[in-house]
Amino acid sequence: MAAPVENNDQLVLSEDPNHPANLICSLCRNFYTHGWVTGTGGGISIRERCDAHDRIFIAPSGVQKERLQPDNMFVMDFPTKSYLRKPLNLKPSACTPLFMAAFEKRGAGACIHTHSQAAVLCTLLTKGRVWRIGGIEQIKAIPKGYGQEGYMGFFDTLEIPIIENTAHEEDLKDSLEAAMEEFPNTCAILVRRHGVYVWGDTVWKAKTQCESLDYLFELGVKMVQLGLDPAAPIAAVEED
Amino acid sequence: MAAPVENNDQLVLSEDPNHPANLICSLCRNFYTHGWVTGTGGGISIRERCDAHDRIFIAPSGVQKERLQPDNMFVMDFPTKSYLRKPLNLKPSACTPLFMAAFEKRGAGACIHTHSQAAVLCTLLTKGRVWRIGGIEQIKAIPKGYGQEGYMGFFDTLEIPIIENTAHEEDLKDSLEAAMEEFPNTCAILVRRHGVYVWGDTVWKAKTQCESLDYLFELGVKMVQLGLDPAAPIAAVEED
Amino acid sequence: MAAPVENNDQLVLSEDPNHPANLICSLCRNFYTHGWVTGTGGGISIRERCDAHDRIFIAPSGVQKERLQPDNMFVMDFPTKSYLRKPLNLKPSACTPLFMAAFEKRGAGACIHTHSQAAVLCTLLTKGRVWRIGGIEQIKAIPKGYGQEGYMGFFDTLEIPIIENTAHEEDLKDSLEAAMEEFPNTCAILVRRHGVYVWGDTVWKAKTQCESLDYLFELGVKMVQLGLDPAAPIAAVEED
Amino acid sequence: MAAPVENNDQLVLSEDPNHPANLICSLCRNFYTHGWVTGTGGGISIRERCDAHDRIFIAPSGVQKERLQPDNMFVMDFPTKSYLRKPLNLKPSACTPLFMAAFEKRGAGACIHTHSQAAVLCTLLTKGRVWRIGGIEQIKAIPKGYGQEGYMGFFDTLEIPIIENTAHEEDLKDSLEAAMEEFPNTCAILVRRHGVYVWGDTVWKAKTQCESLDYLFELGVKMVQLGLDPAAPIAAVEED
Repeated sequence: MAAPVENNDQLVLSEDPNHPANLICSLCRNFYTHGWVTGTGGGISIRERCDAHDRIFIAPSGVQKERLQPDNMFVMDFPTKSYLRKPLNLKPSACTPLFMAAFEKRGAGACIHTHSQAAVLCTLLTKGRVWRIGGIEQIKAIPKGYGQEGYMGFFDTLEIPIIENTAHEEDLKDSLEAAMEEFPNTCAILVRRHGVYVWGDTVWKAKTQCESLDYLFELGVKMVQLGLDPAAPIAAVEED
Repeated sequence: MAAPVENNDQLVLSEDPNHPANLICSLCRNFYTHGWVTGTGGGISIRERCDAHDRIFIAPSGVQKERLQPDNMFVMDFPTKSYLRKPLNLKPSACTPLFMAAFEKRGAGACIHTHSQAAVLCTLLTKGRVWRIGGIEQIKAIPKGYGQEGYMGFFDTLEIPIIENTAHEEDLKDSLEAAMEEFPNTCAILVRRHGVYVWGDTVWKAKTQCESLDYLFELGVKMVQLGLDPAAPIAAVEED
Repeated sequence: MAAPVENNDQLVLSEDPNHPANLICSLCRNFYTHGWVTGTGGGISIRERCDAHDRIFIAPSGVQKERLQPDNMFVMDFPTKSYLRKPLNLKPSACTPLFMAAFEKRGAGACIHTHSQAAVLCTLLTKGRVWRIGGIEQIKAIPKGYGQEGYMGFFDTLEIPIIENTAHEEDLKDSLEAAMEEFPNTCAILVRRHGVYVWGDTVWKAKTQCESLDYLFELGVKMVQLGLDPAAPIAAVEED
Repeated sequence: MAAPVENNDQLVLSEDPNHPANLICSLCRNFYTHGWVTGTGGGISIRERCDAHDRIFIAPSGVQKERLQPDNMFVMDFPTKSYLRKPLNLKPSACTPLFMAAFEKRGAGACIHTHSQAAVLCTLLTKGRVWRIGGIEQIKAIPKGYGQEGYMGFFDTLEIPIIENTAHEEDLKDSLEAAMEEFPNTCAILVRRHGVYVWGDTVWKAKTQCESLDYLFELGVKMVQLGLDPAAPIAAVEED
């Protein structure tokens, strides 16, 4: 008989600061300082693949992200989708189905969800289903797309799809997956009036892409405040 | 004869970081970084209920909140409203009567008062007695109401009553209690040109609700700056 | 013969975190996080009066304020205005004559100078020689005036004089002293296009007054951005 | 035969916090808190000149700047331009040719590159090739110019040249050097839609000049938001 999943502490307790259970804690403290996980919102899930196993580490729902401890983490066996560890009295993040979409459909190594106000404002300032910004150096931090080598160029226009929010977070899964199909190269999906999901091949790529996108969201909002159009062709802004 | 209340240090000295006297200190340092307790403004009071006792921990008046020490705390026996500990040369926070209203009328486990500039600006931008915001995911962090299970929904409009400021903080008590009666489900009351009071069933709920409300106040101000109405029906903003 | 003033390390080396030489270092680190002492701008001077002596501690000029060390400090004997300690290779802050005005004319225990952008913006938004804000709770953190007991009230209008900047900081002394005479109750003087000087009876009063004023400067700028007049009578804003 | 350059750890490992390899790490953590090196953008290079050697320390490309470790550093012998140390699996910063221009043409002791949003916004708000601000005290932190003693004055107008961004960072070298020739006294060059390069005689001068310029960029953007012209003559703003 298998040991009760509540007790598999060895899956989350490690001296290694780069162990996924430790990284989720330290990254969430960092995200808190950015205003990305206010209250108990937002979060991150990390996938650990090696010869021996393929596991997902998930933070619990409803817990203050800057106060997470490694033993708060859920651990799922990715091939079987069964939990290897379930902390008593906690529920896995309501974002779990959305994180799973990034792991399953994009082979992501980590997926981050933030309630960044800059992201929310970009969705409020955009009438259509795509937020755009062009001609900013930071765009070069965004990968060309799923299964492609390299990064976007300075002269490219970055497009991030926006899906509509739903009453329950888990109900976003269908439209999130549909947006992934329609925009196969995006590494992020904005959720109107809610925030953003960002994924990457590794936890560090997910983090730097999330930071770079948030920089672009924030810059885009400031440009609108100053009467500039973030999606305008480069020359148009200079001659405006 | 009872020991002099000045000397009851055992009520506030503890190695446990979650002891109320320690929590008030660490939370106030956190609040300082948010700009909620500038100067000596704002504060927090925590109620500790257990089989053995029912006590209120109160920070002193006029002390820099980010430099509070556990032995600065006042301790009150809640049933008798008598002080069990009174630090020499200090006075209890002028907010005490208002914190008591949250404990007595709403059974709160903690009450937070901030001078958040976002809260003040929301009261300046609102002509009437109620500040409103609708259709933002973060609203789901706010409980449905006193004595009810569960949290507000994404499609709900959040309403926070605003009371007028008075010359002396303690004089706010009557209008704060009246607003609690009139808005029995609110977990917060804005004070025009002053700040906000937020309470919750536990200290952590009070903190996450205060963070979530401040996020919404800040987002609401930014929406107004961008020409968007935080209280508009969802469709209206998208088609605007 | 007196010991060379370069060597009086005992005047600045202490284990006590509240020793003026240590406080200047820790407060300047705090000020750096507020954006008050960017580059090498701004600073603080503390006066230590006791039965045994009456001394001024002054930070050096041109040094990064968040990296100050206690042995960078100058110490002056206040009654004789002679330096008791002069670190080699350093010059006392160019603000020294202005700090001295607060000590001599207002009996201050500390004087803080910041390059706060909010302060600079308030001077740019004000055509006349006085910046005003009224009807904000944080005003109650400002003392009524020199030689008076108590603090301003919520319904009072706070007035901070503005003097014009000069090419050399020390040349501000005459106009700063003239403003002190003309506005005997002010605890601060704004310098157009430059920043603000704030003093208080003790180092903690100077710090909390400086924080509260900066809060009011920042709020005042935000009000202007939102089309509100910080100096308007209370009713006028509500009905506007 | 020379030792493999991969192994010259003694060039970067030191207990001295002011060793260039340690300083690059601690300064980049500081820059991260300012939002200057979001994602993996921006960076700093330090030149160490002494009787024994003349070396350049360079951070690697594509690494999160707030997580740099001393053993991530490249070390170049400045006279021969040959690498003395090359960490395996890393590439030197793409900014290296631009940092070299500051060392070669201006005798800089350090050069900083940031993606500061305030810098980017200043380039977006300026139609021509020069960003200007005048009559702000913080301008006095900027040196008069290459080979000159002293600093700018309060009544001076600061001019920072803007070059156009290119697809590849290294391709900026020609226009950066041309701008250095055309504006021999500038200590910084803005790159449109990208960020800024700032250098100084020493690492501390580079840092304080970078902070002071960023303060001025930020203030300049806020002035535009408030309808004020950062480059207007002083009287014009007051009477406006």
